[in-house]
Amino acid sequence: MRKHPAQNTNQETSNILLRLKRPALLLDESKCRKNIAFMASKAQRHNLILRPHFKTHQSAVIGEWMRKEGTEKITVSSVTMGRYFADSGWDDICIAFPFNIPEMNEANELAGRITLHLTVCSARTLELLEQGIQHKAGIYIKTDTGYGRTGIDHEDTKEIGSMLRILEKSSNLRFSGFMVHNGHTYRCRNRSDIERLHTDSNRKLVKLKEKYINYHPDMIISTGDTPSCSVSENFEGVDEIRPGNYVFYDLAQCHIGSCSPENVAIALAAPVVAKHSRRNEIVVYGGAVHLSKEELVPEEGPGIYGNVVEICSDGTWSDPVPHAAVTRISQEHGIIKCEEGFFRRISVGDFVGILPVHSCLTADLMGGYLSAGGEPVDHLSGQKLPGM
Amino acid sequence: MRKHPAQNTNQETSNILLRLKRPALLLDESKCRKNIAFMASKAQRHNLILRPHFKTHQSAVIGEWMRKEGTEKITVSSVTMGRYFADSGWDDICIAFPFNIPEMNEANELAGRITLHLTVCSARTLELLEQGIQHKAGIYIKTDTGYGRTGIDHEDTKEIGSMLRILEKSSNLRFSGFMVHNGHTYRCRNRSDIERLHTDSNRKLVKLKEKYINYHPDMIISTGDTPSCSVSENFEGVDEIRPGNYVFYDLAQCHIGSCSPENVAIALAAPVVAKHSRRNEIVVYGGAVHLSKEELVPEEGPGIYGNVVEICSDGTWSDPVPHAAVTRISQEHGIIKCEEGFFRRISVGDFVGILPVHSCLTADLMGGYLSAGGEPVDHLSGQKLPGM
Repeated sequence: MRKHPAQNTNQETSNILLRLKRPALLLDESKCRKNIAFMASKAQRHNLILRPHFKTHQSAVIGEWMRKEGTEKITVSSVTMGRYFADSGWDDICIAFPFNIPEMNEANELAGRITLHLTVCSARTLELLEQGIQHKAGIYIKTDTGYGRTGIDHEDTKEIGSMLRILEKSSNLRFSGFMVHNGHTYRCRNRSDIERLHTDSNRKLVKLKEKYINYHPDMIISTGDTPSCSVSENFEGVDEIRPGNYVFYDLAQCHIGSCSPENVAIALAAPVVAKHSRRNEIVVYGGAVHLSKEELVPEEGPGIYGNVVEICSDGTWSDPVPHAAVTRISQEHGIIKCEEGFFRRISVGDFVGILPVHSCLTADLMGGYLSAGGEPVDHLSGQKLPGM
Repeated sequence: MRKHPAQNTNQETSNILLRLKRPALLLDESKCRKNIAFMASKAQRHNLILRPHFKTHQSAVIGEWMRKEGTEKITVSSVTMGRYFADSGWDDICIAFPFNIPEMNEANELAGRITLHLTVCSARTLELLEQGIQHKAGIYIKTDTGYGRTGIDHEDTKEIGSMLRILEKSSNLRFSGFMVHNGHTYRCRNRSDIERLHTDSNRKLVKLKEKYINYHPDMIISTGDTPSCSVSENFEGVDEIRPGNYVFYDLAQCHIGSCSPENVAIALAAPVVAKHSRRNEIVVYGGAVHLSKEELVPEEGPGIYGNVVEICSDGTWSDPVPHAAVTRISQEHGIIKCEEGFFRRISVGDFVGILPVHSCLTADLMGGYLSAGGEPVDHLSGQKLPGM
């Protein structure tokens, strides 16, 4: 790890550590592209439509990397995000979030210029949508096969039937299919538990498909949490997957068993501002407004907010430093607990890397990325300083 | 609670509920100004310098409300924030965060145009600062009287002595005084516990003052967490307070005993996107990217991410709805658990209000406020959509 000089010169340098000034979110393009290729190849192998969720990266630049791997259809989680990516040239977008009635005008504007799919989880929302929509739009019925966050219970065929009747009479709305997000895979701690939930959910969706396919021959089954899509090789009956987090992965996904730390494609570069030798603690400028307060609680020991890596001068980083983690966090402070060897190697003014617990939230907070070359990469949320 | 029409007209309306489209952070100016006046009056009564921490609101507009109540000196937590407020006309700014060496050039730029105070917690940082600084700057020595996050142990007079010797020889750096932030008051659950910590910390600082005041007659004691400054009437030996959160307060402060829910001056307006009658759960568009993942864990029962209020058409809100809280949260979803009466009154498309657990993080995420009149109020972090 190279040291940061006390006073910067304005001289151009290829050593990113000499150019960083404050917390910055480093993006390892090579790891990110590998993750993108991995999922694209898996979808192809299983003959699945890959409609990746862009809410993780929220970046037009990273979107183009996915387009190069064959992505044509995408998922977003808000009308705002839909407009951002429509402006970036995407013309088949699914907003996989229960439709927000007050944004009817914005949805209409979007439906007028691209192939738009909306998500609904009640006949009431569908009625309001039918009254307000002025252009063609696809409708996914959000289904709950066990997660319990939102969506219609897969056995509630009364409500599903009411919704399909509205769709059958509609001139603008068309039934796209049943959608599920099995967020409860995030509570799993090994691959076989993920596999079990995923397969169980798919079976329930296939039953629904069998019930309605004759009346709606174009309907599809769309599933896709990152744990299931990373781990499973069984997609029987599934037509489309919508994973998002895999583009970066994170510590939570490592903990679940979806990936390994070497797959994690973003790291927060945080400057060291204080050291406390009595307790082997390093204080960094990198807190809840950078990493988020997402906590990873292991089976044993206290929760953590990130693992520590060493940043190299080319903007890549090492494997996680053993026994070094962000154990406390406040608005701008991150407290790293570590072993003496690492503690001694690090000085005030150095930058350390932190692998985030939840990459979606960290990226949203940072509002942009830095590539290894020090080039800024966009994120919808951010006009924030790119860190140099 | 007025209902949101399925389709908006562009017509001007004084009913803010008819103009909102997506999550927005409502600011009750009247409550905020009362909070500002309360602390200003308390500081005056105790003959204390009030140097409020602007990291909570990060707003030039709200800063002006404080200026009207007599504030002339302010606290911020980063060089970036210091520049933002210097650009807004503040000319005495303390950056109350361990100095970040890589931002030497930016600190110099700031020190060249305003009265700047920096915070250090090691002789090593002070040496680097002494080498790099080119303008006059005040130095607060960050002291730890029991919190254990950062700062020099108040008994470590060896390190303090080393630092004072550097300062005595410096031509640009001047000793401003000892600073403490007693963040462990946030772990208190009643006013007497807060009072005990606060008084104990002040006693330790007074001892330091007595030891060094003869050599540094201008040095001050600066303290100031919101719980202590809200609750205590004992500031013996203290010269300056730096509370920040009190400008808005939040549920965490209510829980500690610093304030009541009627003092909380911001609320997230979140549209209802789904209802689940079997479990009396309301799903809102308002999640971790709006509220943050800050969790309030009460003595009994599960943790919550916000309490629910009803928003009035003038942009103010009700007292908290009994037994209605955000009990789960993901990137954009908030899940409100409530009683049947409230559940039945709320429809898809309505906006509900959520009092945040930690107002600093919510404001930072939202990147701006809406006044009751629907006017946007600035926040440093945000170029984000103001919600309408």
